[in-house]
Amino acid sequence: MGSETSYADWIAVDWGTSNLRVWAMRASGPVADARSDQGMGTLEPEAFEPALLDLIEPWLGAAPMPVIACGMVGAKQGWAEAPYAAVPCPPVSLATVTPNVQDRRLVVHILPGLSQASPADVMRGEETQIAGYLADVPEFDGILCMPGTHTKWVQVSAGEVVSFRTFMTGEMFALLSTGSVLRHSMDDHWDDAAFQDAVRDGLSDPQALAGRFFGLRAEGLLGAPREGKARARLSGLLIGAELAAAKPYWLGQRIALLGSGRLAGLYADALTGEGAAPEMVDVTDATLRGLTAAYARLKDRL
Amino acid sequence: MGSETSYADWIAVDWGTSNLRVWAMRASGPVADARSDQGMGTLEPEAFEPALLDLIEPWLGAAPMPVIACGMVGAKQGWAEAPYAAVPCPPVSLATVTPNVQDRRLVVHILPGLSQASPADVMRGEETQIAGYLADVPEFDGILCMPGTHTKWVQVSAGEVVSFRTFMTGEMFALLSTGSVLRHSMDDHWDDAAFQDAVRDGLSDPQALAGRFFGLRAEGLLGAPREGKARARLSGLLIGAELAAAKPYWLGQRIALLGSGRLAGLYADALTGEGAAPEMVDVTDATLRGLTAAYARLKDRL
Repeated sequence: MGSETSYADWIAVDWGTSNLRVWAMRASGPVADARSDQGMGTLEPEAFEPALLDLIEPWLGAAPMPVIACGMVGAKQGWAEAPYAAVPCPPVSLATVTPNVQDRRLVVHILPGLSQASPADVMRGEETQIAGYLADVPEFDGILCMPGTHTKWVQVSAGEVVSFRTFMTGEMFALLSTGSVLRHSMDDHWDDAAFQDAVRDGLSDPQALAGRFFGLRAEGLLGAPREGKARARLSGLLIGAELAAAKPYWLGQRIALLGSGRLAGLYADALTGEGAAPEMVDVTDATLRGLTAAYARLKDRL
Repeated sequence: MGSETSYADWIAVDWGTSNLRVWAMRASGPVADARSDQGMGTLEPEAFEPALLDLIEPWLGAAPMPVIACGMVGAKQGWAEAPYAAVPCPPVSLATVTPNVQDRRLVVHILPGLSQASPADVMRGEETQIAGYLADVPEFDGILCMPGTHTKWVQVSAGEVVSFRTFMTGEMFALLSTGSVLRHSMDDHWDDAAFQDAVRDGLSDPQALAGRFFGLRAEGLLGAPREGKARARLSGLLIGAELAAAKPYWLGQRIALLGSGRLAGLYADALTGEGAAPEMVDVTDATLRGLTAAYARLKDRL
């Protein structure tokens, strides 16, 4: 590589707190991809360019390569700060920020995240997934549920993000299951029925949540009937309480669930159990479509 | 020391997960005390006796010394398991367990904790504090609030523990403020008014709790009016949500608050803000009175 002609037309980058993922893009779509654990959370400002080059060097040619990036790379502690666009607004703003780079073969554009004044909230990365979904379903009027460490519920109408809310459910589960006294009650066992029961418990009586966690430990100590179901119950209680708090978002609404893997499946099960019928959307596809839409609109400037 | 006559009549021991505290007791009360960080959580079974001797050796004489201990030392992973007594029952059972000891100068009795079948719950150590409080106020009919890493709400009537509920509020605060993304928004600032506002928010709308945590982070990122108040707000939201869930316990009830230091003060402020009038009881005094009451009843057996 390093030849006169480039391997790619442009490079798509999803750069989160823990991971970096890149795709070599042509008009037809992605032709190659790579990833590393060089997430924004571990990098000093001067380390971003080398971390990116580690992955994309083989795809570069003599001409400057457009790189379109979304995610925490644009945070204040990231490579270069891309100030938030305030909702209501379209999901992706073209007010990108361009960090200084040493390597003249790179022209990097970082997409801004979104902010909401009240209740205070922010997102970085999800806005690009939303744009990707709307590129496919431009008339969408409803709710996007985006499961993750910090799950987002997003109200979309007329091509704009109207409002959104972040729940730290995934992070709470990780902290409680590995860092609290409940870790002694966790095993590898997973019980789907216990999960669904716990979702219902969390959803029907969310104010009792604070008093339920220690019960998971006590059930184990006392050999109670739910012994061995603590992991599924903890997950279900937390997701159920989230569904209760997010009910104004999803109840009676059209719902698209942008996620992947096991966690998206849990949210789908929980919502389906409550009579909702979420449309499942692959989050990687949505990210790539969103970055592609931004590239198409930025191309004249690149 | 080490003389024919003992320095103490007996030795009182409060042995928790993180700390060990001992008192040399005479009929008049404590004459000396000592403490270490040799909590039950760090000790293998054979390490308990040396950890105890480290602190009490100077108090021993030729005759066997009665040692009355409460707390996690009686857990399955402790020195010797003292099986739970099931509520409803008096707070302290005399079904103590006596671990094997090498040193013939020691006769150790470990007091059992309490368990509740439904909802499943357990305590170890608090039962002795409850007994201590009831030794002073035997006619008490009401609620004990016992703030800690795991706060207990205890319904007491006719000298018995009727029911209780454990809240992991203190542990949740520690995890969220030091281990989650919210740690970036914590500073040393404390705002009493923000705490009280957050207690009210948590209490009046506990089902919204799950959606409020990330707002503490976003407020900091966006320079919102509540920037810098995240620590007090996180504490207030958690305690407010606990008060909401525990409302069947405390609303309209006589309340004694057994605690110490800053955390007890926060619970007192929160309860007082809701129109309750908790009686403040020093938890160390209650522990010693409870151990003394158990010693008095066990003395014939020792």
